[in-house]
Amino acid sequence: MNSNLLQNLIIPAQTKIVMLIMDGLGGLPREPGGKTELETARTPNLDDLAQRSSLGLTIPVAPGITPGSGPGHLAIFGYDPLQYEIGRGAMEALGVDFELGPDDLAARGNFCTVDTDGRIIDRRAGRIGTDVNQDLARLLGTIRIEQSEIFIEPVKEHRFAFIMRSPGLYDALSETDPQRIGVVPLPVLALDPDSEKAARYVNQFITAAKELLTHKHPANMILLRGFAKFPIMPTFQEKYGLKAAAIALNGMYRGVARLVGMQVLNVDGITLNDEFVTLEKNWSDFDFFYLHIKKTDTFGELGDFEGKVGAIEEVDAFIPRLLALKPDVIIVGGDHSSPSVLKSHSWHPVPVLLYSHHVRADRIAEFGESACSHGSLGTIPATHIMPTALANALRITKYGA
Amino acid sequence: MNSNLLQNLIIPAQTKIVMLIMDGLGGLPREPGGKTELETARTPNLDDLAQRSSLGLTIPVAPGITPGSGPGHLAIFGYDPLQYEIGRGAMEALGVDFELGPDDLAARGNFCTVDTDGRIIDRRAGRIGTDVNQDLARLLGTIRIEQSEIFIEPVKEHRFAFIMRSPGLYDALSETDPQRIGVVPLPVLALDPDSEKAARYVNQFITAAKELLTHKHPANMILLRGFAKFPIMPTFQEKYGLKAAAIALNGMYRGVARLVGMQVLNVDGITLNDEFVTLEKNWSDFDFFYLHIKKTDTFGELGDFEGKVGAIEEVDAFIPRLLALKPDVIIVGGDHSSPSVLKSHSWHPVPVLLYSHHVRADRIAEFGESACSHGSLGTIPATHIMPTALANALRITKYGA
Repeated sequence: MNSNLLQNLIIPAQTKIVMLIMDGLGGLPREPGGKTELETARTPNLDDLAQRSSLGLTIPVAPGITPGSGPGHLAIFGYDPLQYEIGRGAMEALGVDFELGPDDLAARGNFCTVDTDGRIIDRRAGRIGTDVNQDLARLLGTIRIEQSEIFIEPVKEHRFAFIMRSPGLYDALSETDPQRIGVVPLPVLALDPDSEKAARYVNQFITAAKELLTHKHPANMILLRGFAKFPIMPTFQEKYGLKAAAIALNGMYRGVARLVGMQVLNVDGITLNDEFVTLEKNWSDFDFFYLHIKKTDTFGELGDFEGKVGAIEEVDAFIPRLLALKPDVIIVGGDHSSPSVLKSHSWHPVPVLLYSHHVRADRIAEFGESACSHGSLGTIPATHIMPTALANALRITKYGA
Repeated sequence: MNSNLLQNLIIPAQTKIVMLIMDGLGGLPREPGGKTELETARTPNLDDLAQRSSLGLTIPVAPGITPGSGPGHLAIFGYDPLQYEIGRGAMEALGVDFELGPDDLAARGNFCTVDTDGRIIDRRAGRIGTDVNQDLARLLGTIRIEQSEIFIEPVKEHRFAFIMRSPGLYDALSETDPQRIGVVPLPVLALDPDSEKAARYVNQFITAAKELLTHKHPANMILLRGFAKFPIMPTFQEKYGLKAAAIALNGMYRGVARLVGMQVLNVDGITLNDEFVTLEKNWSDFDFFYLHIKKTDTFGELGDFEGKVGAIEEVDAFIPRLLALKPDVIIVGGDHSSPSVLKSHSWHPVPVLLYSHHVRADRIAEFGESACSHGSLGTIPATHIMPTALANALRITKYGA
């Protein structure tokens, strides 16, 4: 959809929208003709809600395309994931809950091992402990390069997020990781003139890092890849006129929500109950709530069919608490599919349910892949969900006379 | 879909895809409330396969648009038929199995009759016999124009394909057929500067042809129209990383397959069995097989409802032989609809079935227009089929982090 069209038609309203995202929700049956995880799960509350909702299936990026978490979330938030790219470096920084800003250049970092001639022996430095990583990251964080600020955020084992903050750093940069051993790390090259300053700064940083790490074998060198700037995109406020809040336990999802201008709420704890408590506490302060559930995807990627079924059933049990808040519009869906039989993200369309007082209910009393394939929303681009939700929240005025 | 997106995500795999195209597959009931040809046909094997597949309907070009065979095939092959045009002249050349190359300029030719003043009396030369056509074509083939090669390929009665081969021949050319009698044929005009060389060459050819045909009444002149170059498009190898083979009995379909870089296999015979024997013989040598069945369209265009039903049933009987090869992905569909009640191609969406181990089966045990309209693929552009098939063949990696 033409984003200006929508933006010009947005009107204020005293209505609330909740988007409940079960990560990797879509699944597959374990055997031909069987039921998916969602179809297997006992979900009386979601089934009852489905009965009063419009159902459908969402395609996050394009037919046949398996999305990463970034593109999957951007799509369900209504941002074309081919127009707005979140580079790998930026995702790494978001993943450790780093608050990326517009002057930040991010990259994925590895500690690695080099020999006395500087040739790479181990691209992962023997997967050093995360505690060693934390010490070394603190050390690298002391490096000063001209007018920039540098942040080294440990991830786990040998991985860290590298962030350099300075105006005018662009991300058309080659990677230093040659992706094989026996050779020296590559220098960073600017792939366009705008990025020359960034290349110069990053190369200075790498030289300084190499010196600091000389005696830190096996982590005596670093590799950087996936350079990416903070992607600039319109906020939920600008695009939809919504004061939006995000409730998510993992950094990456908190980060993507922050990118689209949501206020990321602090969750006191790590359970689904803690997330719902946060929702209830903040209910009066926002128009839109994004609530993220990670476990569905985690079990999907582990290949744990029953685990994913259980995670869905756990969510189902919280639906009455959601309904008690009397949201005007409820979306229950996912950012992509993660069938446990594939142990990975997949391209399959994702079940979605849209509830409101004004919805044309499909009267299908089941929330599942097959049921949703018969829903009146159809099998649609995920980016269609937000406009439909806004309409149901009476937040879009008439187009044309 | 952005074609670069897909191209950048293609990964190798040891999987095989079969695309079985029944030409003009979609149909209409003979009377309101009745069944279509496909729904009337007894197709136990396709119905059983449908049960384990995702179903849908494909729109070849755009809603309401009736495609020719060229656009219909390009779409199901995943090429936007509005972006890649195969001109009429090129289709005529492909139709007689001529191997068009990048330096070829093709046109549709007619023998016609002119009076002593050169005015057209009969635009079809009294529909001369094909044998006469063959003799005259051989005669015209002796003409030499500067550095070009000339090929005159008889079609039938008064029709032939004209091909002129020389670097730098462009196809923005006006036609010589004035589409009425009592006037002289028009000269070829270049409609852009690039095409001036081609106009000059073709006019020289026409002058030479007129001289050679002076005493060949009623076929004493020619008309040329639909000038078209060989359309350049990415191959299946470039676009999808697929080593693709085509099995088709008719020149036009062999030709379109050749345009997209498929290897066109020789079929020893003219029956469906001969086509399947070719498939079986070549099974180990390719990743992708396009198998074309013409009869469904032929009967549709003849208005022979029962004939089309029979042609579909004949295909159904071969499905077990296809399954015995254990393809990873099977697509059964069509390039367009050809309802026998309309005796022509039509705009109606075309039933399609997509089978793989990783498909979310719709559990609809019928392959037919109505059944497919309830399938989870939805009613979609035909160009979506190839990406979905590639995903199911595990040949597309994840987009974004």
